Amino acid sequence: MQKINSVPTLIQIKAAHEAIKPYIHQTPVISNTSINQITGADIFFKCENFQKIGAFKMRGASYATLTLTKEEKACGIATHSSGNHAQAVALSAKNHGIKAYIVMPSTAPVIKRNATAGYGAEIITCEPNIASRKTTLDKVVERTGATFIHPFDDYNVITGQATASLELIREVGPLDIMMAPIGGGGLMSGTALTTKYLLPDTQIIGAEPIEVNDAYRSYHKGEIVVNETINSIADGLLTNLSDKTFGIIKEHLDDILLVSEKQIVEAMRLIWERMKIIIEPSCAVPLAAILNNKERFEGKKIGLILTGGNVDVNNLPF
Amino acid sequence: MQKINSVPTLIQIKAAHEAIKPYIHQTPVISNTSINQITGADIFFKCENFQKIGAFKMRGASYATLTLTKEEKACGIATHSSGNHAQAVALSAKNHGIKAYIVMPSTAPVIKRNATAGYGAEIITCEPNIASRKTTLDKVVERTGATFIHPFDDYNVITGQATASLELIREVGPLDIMMAPIGGGGLMSGTALTTKYLLPDTQIIGAEPIEVNDAYRSYHKGEIVVNETINSIADGLLTNLSDKTFGIIKEHLDDILLVSEKQIVEAMRLIWERMKIIIEPSCAVPLAAILNNKERFEGKKIGLILTGGNVDVNNLPF
Repeated sequence: MQKINSVPTLIQIKAAHEAIKPYIHQTPVISNTSINQITGADIFFKCENFQKIGAFKMRGASYATLTLTKEEKACGIATHSSGNHAQAVALSAKNHGIKAYIVMPSTAPVIKRNATAGYGAEIITCEPNIASRKTTLDKVVERTGATFIHPFDDYNVITGQATASLELIREVGPLDIMMAPIGGGGLMSGTALTTKYLLPDTQIIGAEPIEVNDAYRSYHKGEIVVNETINSIADGLLTNLSDKTFGIIKEHLDDILLVSEKQIVEAMRLIWERMKIIIEPSCAVPLAAILNNKERFEGKKIGLILTGGNVDVNNLPF
Repeated sequence: MQKINSVPTLIQIKAAHEAIKPYIHQTPVISNTSINQITGADIFFKCENFQKIGAFKMRGASYATLTLTKEEKACGIATHSSGNHAQAVALSAKNHGIKAYIVMPSTAPVIKRNATAGYGAEIITCEPNIASRKTTLDKVVERTGATFIHPFDDYNVITGQATASLELIREVGPLDIMMAPIGGGGLMSGTALTTKYLLPDTQIIGAEPIEVNDAYRSYHKGEIVVNETINSIADGLLTNLSDKTFGIIKEHLDDILLVSEKQIVEAMRLIWERMKIIIEPSCAVPLAAILNNKERFEGKKIGLILTGGNVDVNNLPF
């Protein structure tokens, strides 16, 4: 596949979807009678918690890996992440029989290290700060010649993430509103592009924890601002936006809604109890926004991407 | 529909399935690559945790309600249960616009009382012992003329529960082994019948906690024996067998396997973490049996019924 070096087109997103199909699940879309009754809306949940490695990140990593040249493949791929992107890169490498180098902070949970190592990746431990992550990764890339796959500031990754909403729209048709949570913005920007291309009249609304509201503030200020704290249970959403994701979000989003930590846990509990599925706290953020802005969503047909299901069951918020 | 007064035939099970279709979900069948790798088996999980009211009990209660005469309907239906059967009877009554009377022990969790009352049922509180349950129910039936729907010692209920395995077999075809957990035996006996009728060469294996092994002991002794303790996390499996369920289980089961509490929690965790779905501890019992008897199940194609997903997320075993 060709590398994508600018905002992906619909044709590119569709081609990426065909290309990654052997490496991803077409995840189910579920609606739930009692959550629809509670919200007064008609919500279609795209269940990326059932995706390979348990999160949508498999889409972007799969596509980025497919764009590598033979020479690049020979040197492997690398990233820094302690979360779902690490596992996605590791599994993508395994799928293509190439090497993966994952830089992880020394504080990363053992369960995540083991899961990543289980796919055959080489784990390189760094200090638990951003500077150490970067320098450690730079050294790995220098030593190995591996290609760095950024978790979101990469149009190939954004193109891959855009395929979740492509499947959702193909399955459920027109929507009044499309929603996703915002972390680094890879999923949100991909989702915004697909939705704009296929359903130009659909509102696109992001959701973010108040505690890590960099996207909200960036969107309103018109330039990237960063988080001052990372005190949110939504551990997939602690990252700041990047140039590429902010560019798309700024242009295509109709709004970004903020929710409290308590609202996130309540929405997460509601999904667990009513839908009987396991989702990460990050996934609960858009539903929390719906529950706390009911009048705005009542009677609306809504597409909502549940991003992942990798939680530590020994450490739950309820 | 006609009342079924003896062991149901395949024709009766199929007719019951058609009749209850408007009141139940056709639940998904899921398989999981990593659990298949761990067990060496090929397991098809029938996900009754996604059933209405969150458990297979909706099937039996729906069918039993459909067999009522106009006169019986006028007086409503009654049962004693603090669990899933209570909600199933309550929702079935609501579906037909009739009254439901549910006898619940004073110790029943508020969440279960509320869920049952939420379907419009009248809750009658009794002392937390079997004698009080029975006398309280008798009084309710005497006062109201309601029809008692037993949670399992009723061929109509057994016929309804048999429809879960009917859907499973229709979806996945021939199986080497069919498995379900055993509590009162309603699901297990219905599952055994459907399997014997459709797949006469398939082994039928029940699974039970060691701590409440009445079915195991009854099966081997050839007569019903009762539990001496009810110390199991598998709160759906604490009941003893009845004449009707034991009759079917004795005749059709190839084996009953026992598992420890620790094994149940480990299997439950495995399903939560790998499949990203919420199941009750009771559901984990057959997988625990597979995990602890690997050589027996290796290479086998197995159907396994996940019975329900109603757990108190504030009170988890991990």
